[in-house]
Amino acid sequence: MNRQQLLEQIKAKQSFLCIGLDTDINKIPEFLLDFEDPIFEFNKQIIAATYDLCVAYKPNTAFYESRGVKGWQSLIRTWQYIPETCFSIADAKRGDIGNTSEMYARAFFDERSGGMSFDALTVAPYMGNDSVTPFLKFKDKWVILLALTSNPGSRDFQLLPCGNERLFESVLQKANGWGTSENMMYVVGATQGEAFATIRKHAPDHFLLVPGIGVQGGNLQEVCRYGMNKDCGLLINSSRAIIYASNGKDFAERAREEALKIQQEMAGELGKIGLI
Amino acid sequence: MNRQQLLEQIKAKQSFLCIGLDTDINKIPEFLLDFEDPIFEFNKQIIAATYDLCVAYKPNTAFYESRGVKGWQSLIRTWQYIPETCFSIADAKRGDIGNTSEMYARAFFDERSGGMSFDALTVAPYMGNDSVTPFLKFKDKWVILLALTSNPGSRDFQLLPCGNERLFESVLQKANGWGTSENMMYVVGATQGEAFATIRKHAPDHFLLVPGIGVQGGNLQEVCRYGMNKDCGLLINSSRAIIYASNGKDFAERAREEALKIQQEMAGELGKIGLI
Repeated sequence: MNRQQLLEQIKAKQSFLCIGLDTDINKIPEFLLDFEDPIFEFNKQIIAATYDLCVAYKPNTAFYESRGVKGWQSLIRTWQYIPETCFSIADAKRGDIGNTSEMYARAFFDERSGGMSFDALTVAPYMGNDSVTPFLKFKDKWVILLALTSNPGSRDFQLLPCGNERLFESVLQKANGWGTSENMMYVVGATQGEAFATIRKHAPDHFLLVPGIGVQGGNLQEVCRYGMNKDCGLLINSSRAIIYASNGKDFAERAREEALKIQQEMAGELGKIGLI
Repeated sequence: MNRQQLLEQIKAKQSFLCIGLDTDINKIPEFLLDFEDPIFEFNKQIIAATYDLCVAYKPNTAFYESRGVKGWQSLIRTWQYIPETCFSIADAKRGDIGNTSEMYARAFFDERSGGMSFDALTVAPYMGNDSVTPFLKFKDKWVILLALTSNPGSRDFQLLPCGNERLFESVLQKANGWGTSENMMYVVGATQGEAFATIRKHAPDHFLLVPGIGVQGGNLQEVCRYGMNKDCGLLINSSRAIIYASNGKDFAERAREEALKIQQEMAGELGKIGLI
């Protein structure tokens, strides 16, 4: 999915919600355990109940890998089930030397190779240029590079002063030379508040993937105030608050209710900037 | 495998060689393609031919993930086949917020969960403390944290001056507070030459995992001169130069010859420090 198509979805759905499919076998409703692939069954019902309210789905690969081969199967089935009207993100935080990153690109972008073709992959920047650029060779595919994450550990290195700026600013500046706002986004945690203004100085046009709303404590309106640009420029992720809204038979219905609340708030924000 | 057991293996085998199983379906001998799982068959024959000459095997997960479900199966079979006398490293460069890193730990350390129980996992430091420490809760398991990697992109961020030191030094200092030399190692590329002296200032006792010998241009003797400590303190990895020494029927035999050359050089180095 290219930038123009993503923007059309945002306008059509009046939403920039990304739903994180961090699906944990110990948290899903018990009755699903009778299905052959409970993880996929859960995701399927969540997607069926919410696909018109969100513009993206983001399975985090850790939850699938933790179940070995059957988890990887659930991940592939989930990718297959995500409708074409939704942007698909493999939240895998990969990155390695050049020839190895090429292999990761095949895993997540090349269906003939790894069985999946996500629109985007999250990538860690520590190894630099040649660990990131192999992912940018795929048409209409995106790198979503970690810049300033939502967790407490983000303070350890990302906020370190490096010369006249902090490390995450150096990451943005260098990465701006590797990709464009048509094939690269940045991860910026919703918990980072006023840092969004700094991010926008370095990356005024890029889309930002924003985790950390909900359980981690981030606030939607604050993120929009500092982080929105004229094309919206935000994909705001919510995982646990939506997918685990209930652990009964009504889990998908309750997930829809939670997603709807956020979508309505987002419609208001999109109205403020005149995009809808 | 704990540090004492690793050291015993190094002495017994007179080797600190790690063989990287970066197994690429397009590079293995053609006759193997007739096997049900050519990737595993290749690894099995490489391991059978070299396990007495090396102390560790390191499959890089990217090569397995690029083949989807069947690749993940090959990875699990490979882990199962690595003998107990060899330290096993999943070179996966993972790392995510706390609850997600716990899932990655289950994937690679908990056989009941993900089907594998590697001795060690490579981890990327960018997300800080809570992305690394969940892996340290497993007894006799190791985090091998990226410090200064072997690739050209290592210059982009790892060598950035941050205050009075460079970023990789800050990573070492912080990480020294998260783990110990009994459960943490650091990745330092063989191409980094004199930087080993700086690494040893910050981490005199830790083992270092050193990729980049051979195809990437690193030199064994130089690494030993600057990087060895009294317990050897090095696991030096070679991948392509060993496993692709031949692409004919003699590939395993030729891999053994290459491994033997390195092992003999290593025995000399261990003799110099009086460890054998």
